[in-house]
Amino acid sequence: MTPSTPPNDRFLRALRREPVDRTPVWLMRQAGRYLPEYRASRKRAGSFLAMAKNPDFACEVTLQPLARFPLDAAILFSDILTIPDAMGLELYFVEGEGPKFRHPVRDAAAIARLGVPDMETDLRYVMDAVRVIRRELDGSVPLIGFSGSPWTLACYMVEGGGSKDFARIKALALNDPAALHQLLAVNTDAVIAYLASQLAAGAQALQVFDTWGGVLSPAMYREFSLPYLERIARELPRGDGADRTPLILFGKGNAAYLDDLSRSGAEGLGCDWLVELGDAARRVGGRVALQGNLDPATLYGAPDAIRRSVRHALDSYAAGNGGSREGHVFNLGHGMSPDMDPDHVAVLVDEVHAYSAR
Amino acid sequence: MTPSTPPNDRFLRALRREPVDRTPVWLMRQAGRYLPEYRASRKRAGSFLAMAKNPDFACEVTLQPLARFPLDAAILFSDILTIPDAMGLELYFVEGEGPKFRHPVRDAAAIARLGVPDMETDLRYVMDAVRVIRRELDGSVPLIGFSGSPWTLACYMVEGGGSKDFARIKALALNDPAALHQLLAVNTDAVIAYLASQLAAGAQALQVFDTWGGVLSPAMYREFSLPYLERIARELPRGDGADRTPLILFGKGNAAYLDDLSRSGAEGLGCDWLVELGDAARRVGGRVALQGNLDPATLYGAPDAIRRSVRHALDSYAAGNGGSREGHVFNLGHGMSPDMDPDHVAVLVDEVHAYSAR
Repeated sequence: MTPSTPPNDRFLRALRREPVDRTPVWLMRQAGRYLPEYRASRKRAGSFLAMAKNPDFACEVTLQPLARFPLDAAILFSDILTIPDAMGLELYFVEGEGPKFRHPVRDAAAIARLGVPDMETDLRYVMDAVRVIRRELDGSVPLIGFSGSPWTLACYMVEGGGSKDFARIKALALNDPAALHQLLAVNTDAVIAYLASQLAAGAQALQVFDTWGGVLSPAMYREFSLPYLERIARELPRGDGADRTPLILFGKGNAAYLDDLSRSGAEGLGCDWLVELGDAARRVGGRVALQGNLDPATLYGAPDAIRRSVRHALDSYAAGNGGSREGHVFNLGHGMSPDMDPDHVAVLVDEVHAYSAR
Repeated sequence: MTPSTPPNDRFLRALRREPVDRTPVWLMRQAGRYLPEYRASRKRAGSFLAMAKNPDFACEVTLQPLARFPLDAAILFSDILTIPDAMGLELYFVEGEGPKFRHPVRDAAAIARLGVPDMETDLRYVMDAVRVIRRELDGSVPLIGFSGSPWTLACYMVEGGGSKDFARIKALALNDPAALHQLLAVNTDAVIAYLASQLAAGAQALQVFDTWGGVLSPAMYREFSLPYLERIARELPRGDGADRTPLILFGKGNAAYLDDLSRSGAEGLGCDWLVELGDAARRVGGRVALQGNLDPATLYGAPDAIRRSVRHALDSYAAGNGGSREGHVFNLGHGMSPDMDPDHVAVLVDEVHAYSAR
């Protein structure tokens, strides 16, 4: 990136629902195993966690997709589970099995012992990564910081890893809801402090991943996930007016709650592909920007099919947004997978920019 | 079951939206590994498939939950993948990995070779099981026959087994939609013939499991799943008036399509727990009966929590159905799991009957 390149602020403008020359695009998990250069970095670092905990490696892989594709935002390379790790649960990874905790939290006594980590000591490696990446981006595109949502963190903390049925945390919700609320409260305090620290370190937008909100019945979502997302949107200090740092609430399975979420005070909502984007735009009624929502599996299609699907999403958003493309950040409805073809990503990014510029 | 017991027709009456003395209840996968007697039968048979393919074993395990709990319907013990197995794909199971096919169908040429199996030869073991079970039930409760949906069968046929991202079938949908439609058409012909044969063999209600419809974007659901469900509802010959054999369309993730599905001609819709049951009742507007929709994980809760959740579902349905419990078949929103406690099932069934009788 040469110093003469003007800063690309499409992403931040779209989140403020201001006019843009073309729809901005970034992709969840855009820095990942589908890139050979990422796999090489990971090999040198030794593991995913070794990369995430080393600011130079984190910066290196954060920048890799930007060197290949004209993406409109960078996202901090990190994990959604850094907070519980810093709380003492000890995050580790088993190849092919996803994240796990050595010390899961299963009862009220264990929950009562949890505290909010200190951001500049326990999670300093994250803040250092933000600082290094901001310096290296040198204003070229905005940097997004992020966290898991209180409910999603709680899922991993109680289950001790991924789950198909979320049996343990749902049993806790049914049998001892007060204990679960205590866990969600400490998680919320920690998420707010964590995002505020990332902002102070240089993050220019913040995203909360409510990956597992969509496994809950409506009654449980409204009791155990939504109120904590709303609290973050309300309490996270992030400036005012044009200087306000936008907050994006992403949730898998959040289509039924977009109206509620659009009144939370968040600036943007990220949605999955299980809702037609135009319907999502109608539901949020111009109160927030929308990010999404292409089915990631679209990247398994041939270039023609990818271009067609991109145009469908762009047109659908505009149709639901009074004919305007304002307030749309193009993204997938979920993260990328290791077996995706980088050439297909290039097609997607190109089509978003080319079609939306017309 | 003594011959003097009057036949229990609550389930069929509820599907016709007629008054019942209490809300009928059955549970998806009610004959399953959570029962020690099931595990003993399976051990004797040698495997799941050996049980499913032997009418005496299939009958034995079908009746097991009815001996324990006052359930209002029996469901044929079988697998949703019998049709593709009979088409020559060769179903097999790997412990802990779910169903797989030895000969998946991946391209237009393989799809063109598929034909509708002969029901009374290739799938005779299923029809024999229906006949044996009907004889043994002796009119005590109705017997439900079932099939996978055309889309759900296609998922397994193309992927070759379960999938997290459905990459292969979504790529086929994007790159060669005509071939996928051909696959869905032959599956639909086969499902209609299969359900008609089960009806002829004695099944008194029929359910289609669209387990994977909910992984599709709205545009893809409306192209690749919904029209084939509608064709089954329209074309399956099942009698008229009070003699009509009811058809239930169950789908995970079908909340957004309940209005469409309620106009398909099916008598009942089964829904998962991601929709408030009262909202579902409002959406179907009395056009069909509703089956569901308790989160199966509720069975991991303590008895008090189970009773509370059952009452919530019953009250929610009635609130959305003009204050009436008519047209509700209580069920889970998905199948039971092996680690569930049979005593908790007893609590659930008891509470459905006790609370709805008030």
